[in-house]
This record gives sequence, structure tokens and C-alpha cells, in this order.
Amino acid sequence: MSYLDQISSPTLLIDEKITRANIKRMADKAASQGKKLVPHWKTAQSHEIGNWAKEYGIKEVTASSIKLAEYLCGQGWDTIHIAFPFNIRETKKLNELAANQSLSVQIVNPITAQKLSDQLTNPVGFFIEIDAGYGRTGVHVSDFGTIKEILRIAKSSNKLKFRGFYLHPGHTYYTPDKQKIYKQSIDALIMLKTKYSSEFPDLVTRLGDTPGCAVMEDFGDVDELGPGNFVFFDLMQAELGSCSREDIAVCLAVPVVDINRERGEILIHGGGVHLAKDVLIDKDGNKNFGEVVALHENGWSLLPDRSYLKSISQEHGVIKASQSLLNQVQVGDLLGILPIHSCMTADCMGGYLSLDGQWVDHAEGCH
Amino acid sequence: MSYLDQISSPTLLIDEKITRANIKRMADKAASQGKKLVPHWKTAQSHEIGNWAKEYGIKEVTASSIKLAEYLCGQGWDTIHIAFPFNIRETKKLNELAANQSLSVQIVNPITAQKLSDQLTNPVGFFIEIDAGYGRTGVHVSDFGTIKEILRIAKSSNKLKFRGFYLHPGHTYYTPDKQKIYKQSIDALIMLKTKYSSEFPDLVTRLGDTPGCAVMEDFGDVDELGPGNFVFFDLMQAELGSCSREDIAVCLAVPVVDINRERGEILIHGGGVHLAKDVLIDKDGNKNFGEVVALHENGWSLLPDRSYLKSISQEHGVIKASQSLLNQVQVGDLLGILPIHSCMTADCMGGYLSLDGQWVDHAEGCH
Repeated sequence: MSYLDQISSPTLLIDEKITRANIKRMADKAASQGKKLVPHWKTAQSHEIGNWAKEYGIKEVTASSIKLAEYLCGQGWDTIHIAFPFNIRETKKLNELAANQSLSVQIVNPITAQKLSDQLTNPVGFFIEIDAGYGRTGVHVSDFGTIKEILRIAKSSNKLKFRGFYLHPGHTYYTPDKQKIYKQSIDALIMLKTKYSSEFPDLVTRLGDTPGCAVMEDFGDVDELGPGNFVFFDLMQAELGSCSREDIAVCLAVPVVDINRERGEILIHGGGVHLAKDVLIDKDGNKNFGEVVALHENGWSLLPDRSYLKSISQEHGVIKASQSLLNQVQVGDLLGILPIHSCMTADCMGGYLSLDGQWVDHAEGCH
Repeated sequence: MSYLDQISSPTLLIDEKITRANIKRMADKAASQGKKLVPHWKTAQSHEIGNWAKEYGIKEVTASSIKLAEYLCGQGWDTIHIAFPFNIRETKKLNELAANQSLSVQIVNPITAQKLSDQLTNPVGFFIEIDAGYGRTGVHVSDFGTIKEILRIAKSSNKLKFRGFYLHPGHTYYTPDKQKIYKQSIDALIMLKTKYSSEFPDLVTRLGDTPGCAVMEDFGDVDELGPGNFVFFDLMQAELGSCSREDIAVCLAVPVVDINRERGEILIHGGGVHLAKDVLIDKDGNKNFGEVVALHENGWSLLPDRSYLKSISQEHGVIKASQSLLNQVQVGDLLGILPIHSCMTADCMGGYLSLDGQWVDHAEGCH
């Protein structure tokens, strides 16, 4: 029986071969430069996909929330890093988890460091998150006063262990010159490592985001790479040049519920609650909420003529269809939709169907 | 103990008083005109909130998917309508549910009617969805050939029962002249009712969307109203004039994890996986992903000076904060965020915390 026979409603498909190839490619790149790859598991959020990753030498992962860290605990990871400015209201939960799992957190201000120093009951590592230009979060790279104060507080604690500096240059998502961003980011991390390594000889520097890690070939003296999305990729990454459409490892299978041949539109069950509402805008100003692929027994394949989701609401999706697709599509068919942002789509769907018809886990409600 | 003490991570709060007032107001409006109110339960997706609604005379609800209908089955609803062009891959599930619950579906093409006619094992009602200008889905109001064909097929079935015409004029969300849309929509439904009522004397007409139902006072000879969002409202509805900010019944409680006083920004744990990515654009082109309210023991209150979410990513939210908020906020505080689109936020969060500290159910993964 084909996996397709199991599908009656919107279902997120995963191609294990593509996923493994994506992980292997990044693991090989990191290894070839002597870097440790610590992938951000906010994309896959899965035990089973974690087991695939372990086959390529991955030993540590990163979570986006303490709930996701809890889901990933006890799965054999050397350390789980929670790459979000630590939320001091979750100290109790952190203590519970740290009793049985090596964990690290991210600190961006002395108040949080003090709270952890006062209340930790088990050893927990921490990175200081650095902002070298993205501007979302982190201690500014030149704010040595704050760094010094966080380190002073940590030194007074026998539980809070400084591990190093973490930098997420998220502006690679909207800045064409990724080389320049990476140069600034690497320079910032190396400057900090040089400045603090006599006091903390074991400190490491970690850098990572998928658009940068996918296209850069030289990461300088940075120790660790931390991209996440590369495990699946998506249309946004294809647009950014991080991957080709053939590298996208997940695809939403959707049922066709109506066809309007006059308007050249196909109505599907598949909307914002399945795909999330991330959107690409093409050069003519048209919105694109996902692109259509053909489903077959072995997976999916790109179509010769482009068809795409021109609009979505909560459950509805409207495909602007090519003539060739219109010529063959029938009510009741299944189509595939490559997502704009796979992390968000996977989070909406909360599980995957593999191409051999097995369910693959995804953390539910872990945000 | 205050409900606030229960919160350590992003949590969707519900104010029962506001919710009940919203339901009562719409129920009173419908009753005063002799219309039946059949609310779209894709917003609340809850048994308990359904029980509140029953106190205001609500006896039927609408679901957005067969999975949500399944969740709502057995809760004492006279009928559950699935307001989505029926997906013929779900006929088996429909037969299962229809064995124990009165259901109706929506049909927009003869292929679907034929499939149901052939395969239904229990009686199921159906509405023909009509498109009178929105352009998303439905049989065009003047496409009498398709309507006739659907009705012909249904007549040959002893299970498929025609109930009437359903019209969702979703263009009220982006068209200022709601009066005009409602006039067109009501005219369309009445024309159809007149045309088909000799053959189907019991047929009903149902019309509904929140922006229209909230502001219109006269629904003409339409029989039933079917809005959904009005149960909670949100900032998009406030923007459209459907409600005031004081009528918004849900609010995302979020922990403050960092404060950048220089930039006037507050970093919260609260992003696209909690709020969804619906956005309002103000007249200066600024994005608004939600607005800040103060939380206190009895619920939340609007702030004298506006603070809003200027950007969100998967888990992060960045608040552009007023000076008065900056003066008092501390790392570890909780703030409230009024959502842009409450249906999507509730779907992301999958549960509510009431102001007396009780958990209120929301269907999980029912899309």
C-alpha cells in the first residue's frame, strides 16, 4: 500500500533521503573545517530525525524553548542548548531537567545571570548571546560592561558554567551580502574569544543560521556552527540561494476540493493552520504561500510549469494553476505544497508521514 | 493564588465575561431580527466555550474541518455544519460521525455531490456554497446549471438532504463598503431562495462573517447568521470597526526576557508559533503583530500609551515600547499581547487559561 492511500486530510510528508542528504552535507562541511555542528532542532523537533542525525556524528542539539528541551531530554544528546534568552520564570523547570540532562542556556543580561546564580540546583552551562548587527537580541558586541558583569556573577556561582559566545546573524535572511555579515560576525566572535580566553581557556564560539552556513565556505576560527532550517530547507531558503528546490525535504500533501477552470484556480484543503502564513513576494508583487509539486508513490517531483498558492485563509488555499496542471487535476486528487518556511509548517502540523507510510514524531505544543 | 502565578511560558488567557458578552450581543441581535445564529466554531474550537454559548440559545455550530467536527460531536449540538467544500477523501470519516451526530456539509460541485450520493450510509444535510463576489470558493450565484446538477444528484439519493444556500462574504475584510457587500449577498440569497423554494419549501439561507454581522443592523430576509470571530474578536476586527479593543476576549500572556532601553524595545518569549504571523500595517507602513496590555489579578487593561509588537520570529517577539511602559517593566514580568487574528492564535496555542486559573479546552491539531 502506498503512503498516499493513508492520506485523507492535509498531511506533512517527509522524504528521509533528502533529509539525510541535507544533514550529511552540512555535517561534512563542518567536519572538513574542523568545526562542531550543533544543529538547531527547532526545525525538526523530532526524536526520530534526531536519531538519523546521530548517524552523521551529531551529538548535541539546540532547542528554541524549555518545552522543546524537555521533549528532547533523555534521547542521548551530550548536551541540549536552549538558544533563547533565558526566561527566569522557568528556573524551576530548568532545575528539574538539569538533574538528568546536560543543558546550556543563553544569557543576555545580568539580572538573569543573578537569578540563575541564586536558584540553580544543578550545574548548567551558558552562552552569552552576542549582537553584532542583527539587532534582535543579545549583548552588543562592544558592551564589555554587561559581559563583564554577567561573567562576574557567574564566577560567584558553583552551578553556572560559562561555555562561550553565541551569535545568530539573522540579517542574512534579508541582506544580499552574506560574506560581509559573516566577516563581521566571525570578527566579533574572535575578538571576544581573544579577549576572554586567558580567563576562560575552554570558551567556544558558535555561529549559525542556515542562509550563511549553507553558502559560506570559510568560517575562520569560529569553533561551532548552529544552523537549523538546513535539515529540511524550504522555498524561502531556495529564494535566498541556500538550496535548490530539489533539496526541500518536507511537503504538505493536500486534497483538491474544487477546481475553477475559468479562473485557472484549484481550491485545496490547506491554509494558514497547516502552512503558517509566511509568504514570499515575487518581483511583480504577487504573493506566494507555497508551490505545487506532483505526488507519486516514491515521493514528489517538481512540475515543468509553475503553480503556486496565491492566497490562504485559515483552512482554504487557492492555487494559481498552470494550464498543464489544470488539464490533469481532478477533485479528490492529492497535490504537494512545498512550504515557504518549513520550521513553521512543521510546528503547525505536529508530525510527519514518511514515504514508506510511517509516522515520524514532532514535539506537540512545545513552544 | 492568582492565575498569573501559574504562568511561566506563553499562555493564552481568556476573559469569560468578555466572551459571554460578545456571544450575548450577537445572539440578541440575531434574535431581535428573528434570525437563527449558528456561530462558526473555528475560532473557539472548545467544548466549554460551547457550553457558555448554549446559555444564550445557541443550538448549532459550524466546524472548519471534519476533524473539528469530530471533536465537537457528542456535545449536545442539534447539528454541526462543516463549512468547507467537502473533501471526498473524508467520506468514510463522515459516515462514521453521521451515525451518531446530525451533520451537514458544503457542496460546490457535482462530482462531490455524486460521490456523497453514492457512498453515504447515513443521512447528511448539505448547503450549496454560493459565491456572490468574494471569489474564494463556492458556485457562482448565476451558475444555475451547476446548482441544478447538484440538486438533481441529491434528489436521487435518500441520504443527501438539501438544506439551503450558504454564503461567506469574506471580502468584508478588505472592502470599506460593507453595506454594499451585504446588499449584494442578501439579494443573491433571496433570489436563490425564491427560485428554489417551491421545489424545496424548507430551504434556508445562511450568511455570515464577523465584520459584516458586527456592523450591519438589517439582514433582510436571510434566515441564519454564521459569524465566527465575534466570540473573541481581535485587533484586525477592531481595525475594521467590528468591535472596540475592550471587546477582545483573549490575550497572550508573555514573559519579558530582556529590555533594551536605548532602543526602547522589550524582548518577549512570544512569536509566530504562538500568535501566528498575521499582521496589520499602519498608515506609516509599520508592521504590528499585536498590542501590549497590562496584566493584573482580574485580567488585563489597555495601556494609556501604545506599545506594540514590531517584529516576531519563530519564538521571539520585539515590542516597540512607550516610555511609560519602559519606566516600569522588569525582566521576568508578564505582559499581555492582544492578537491580530484570534482564530489563528487560539489554533496555535491549543488551550486557554481562565482568569480564575482554570484550563479551558481547545481542540488540538484538528485541522
